[in-house]
Amino acid sequence: MDGGDRMDAVLCGIDPGLGTSGYAVIRTGGEGTAVVDAGVCRFDPKLPLAERLVAIDHDISAILNEHHPEVVAVEQLYSHYNHPRTAILMGHARGVILLAAARLGIEVHSYSATRIKRYLTGNGRATKAQMQRAIQLTLGLLTIPEPADVADALAIALCLAGDNTPRSKIKDRSPKNIPIFDLRTSDMVRR
Amino acid sequence: MDGGDRMDAVLCGIDPGLGTSGYAVIRTGGEGTAVVDAGVCRFDPKLPLAERLVAIDHDISAILNEHHPEVVAVEQLYSHYNHPRTAILMGHARGVILLAAARLGIEVHSYSATRIKRYLTGNGRATKAQMQRAIQLTLGLLTIPEPADVADALAIALCLAGDNTPRSKIKDRSPKNIPIFDLRTSDMVRR
Repeated sequence: MDGGDRMDAVLCGIDPGLGTSGYAVIRTGGEGTAVVDAGVCRFDPKLPLAERLVAIDHDISAILNEHHPEVVAVEQLYSHYNHPRTAILMGHARGVILLAAARLGIEVHSYSATRIKRYLTGNGRATKAQMQRAIQLTLGLLTIPEPADVADALAIALCLAGDNTPRSKIKDRSPKNIPIFDLRTSDMVRR
Repeated sequence: MDGGDRMDAVLCGIDPGLGTSGYAVIRTGGEGTAVVDAGVCRFDPKLPLAERLVAIDHDISAILNEHHPEVVAVEQLYSHYNHPRTAILMGHARGVILLAAARLGIEVHSYSATRIKRYLTGNGRATKAQMQRAIQLTLGLLTIPEPADVADALAIALCLAGDNTPRSKIKDRSPKNIPIFDLRTSDMVRR
């Protein structure tokens, strides 16, 4: 695939979690939007919290170093969780992910789940199935994106791609072949 | 001061926050307990969250790299905050602090505010003034430790020093002179 002389942007969406974090790297520009890489990072629940954060930092930094996205979008955490202790713990993971991006000089955006759902389906309360279908249609995937963490990360990346603010700041990148898919784990979305 | 042939341990307490984080490094062993360094790290509230986390990582890592504590204790966050959004944001800061310690291979402990208060005063609901007085007496400080973030960090470090678990694991370190105080900011406790 030839990127031609249009501005292409590599964007990354991350669904933060202490047990599993989903990530999606997309390339968007004159040729449309394609998935470059997507998958989940799983962290051993038996590890102490601090060591799990080291693993999150390691894995997310590796993905960002590999793909050098211009902007990373990370889903906001609900502040009305029924389990506030869980929300605080998830804040630990999200903080480490924001740090990993900012340390590499990558611009960071945050979107609420409601905003992401509204962007993709027009409905801020869309169901999981509606969201998966919208992602499948937008990206022309042959199958429903799974697992849920990957679907969420793809949705965040697509919301970022549709957001005018970061796109106006996106710099031109030298065109090169786009790998449609880069296998990282067995939990990839397939097209 | 000569550490002699007794086991001395350098321990660190951190009171995590996005605007201000308090820290205290103490040396405890045969000669009693002394403050090696204590102060606050202040982070520009105008910085975006991700950049503030980079500043927290930088400042806390610098302190840990300078003093090489055997164990770092970080205060737990309340899960019953009236403002759950604030608690989640504080979780971001605490996650980055735990990461900074674990990345350096430093053992991390967590204590609740109630446990720290109970350890120092016998009362899990001790007032701020009672806590400051207890810290002053324990460390033989000439003045009340201020500001509150430094007092909190000293309390966490003293709680860690009193905890049997980490002390039983503490390794011997070559004795050397102990700087009673290492000026870092204008907000130090004085003795």
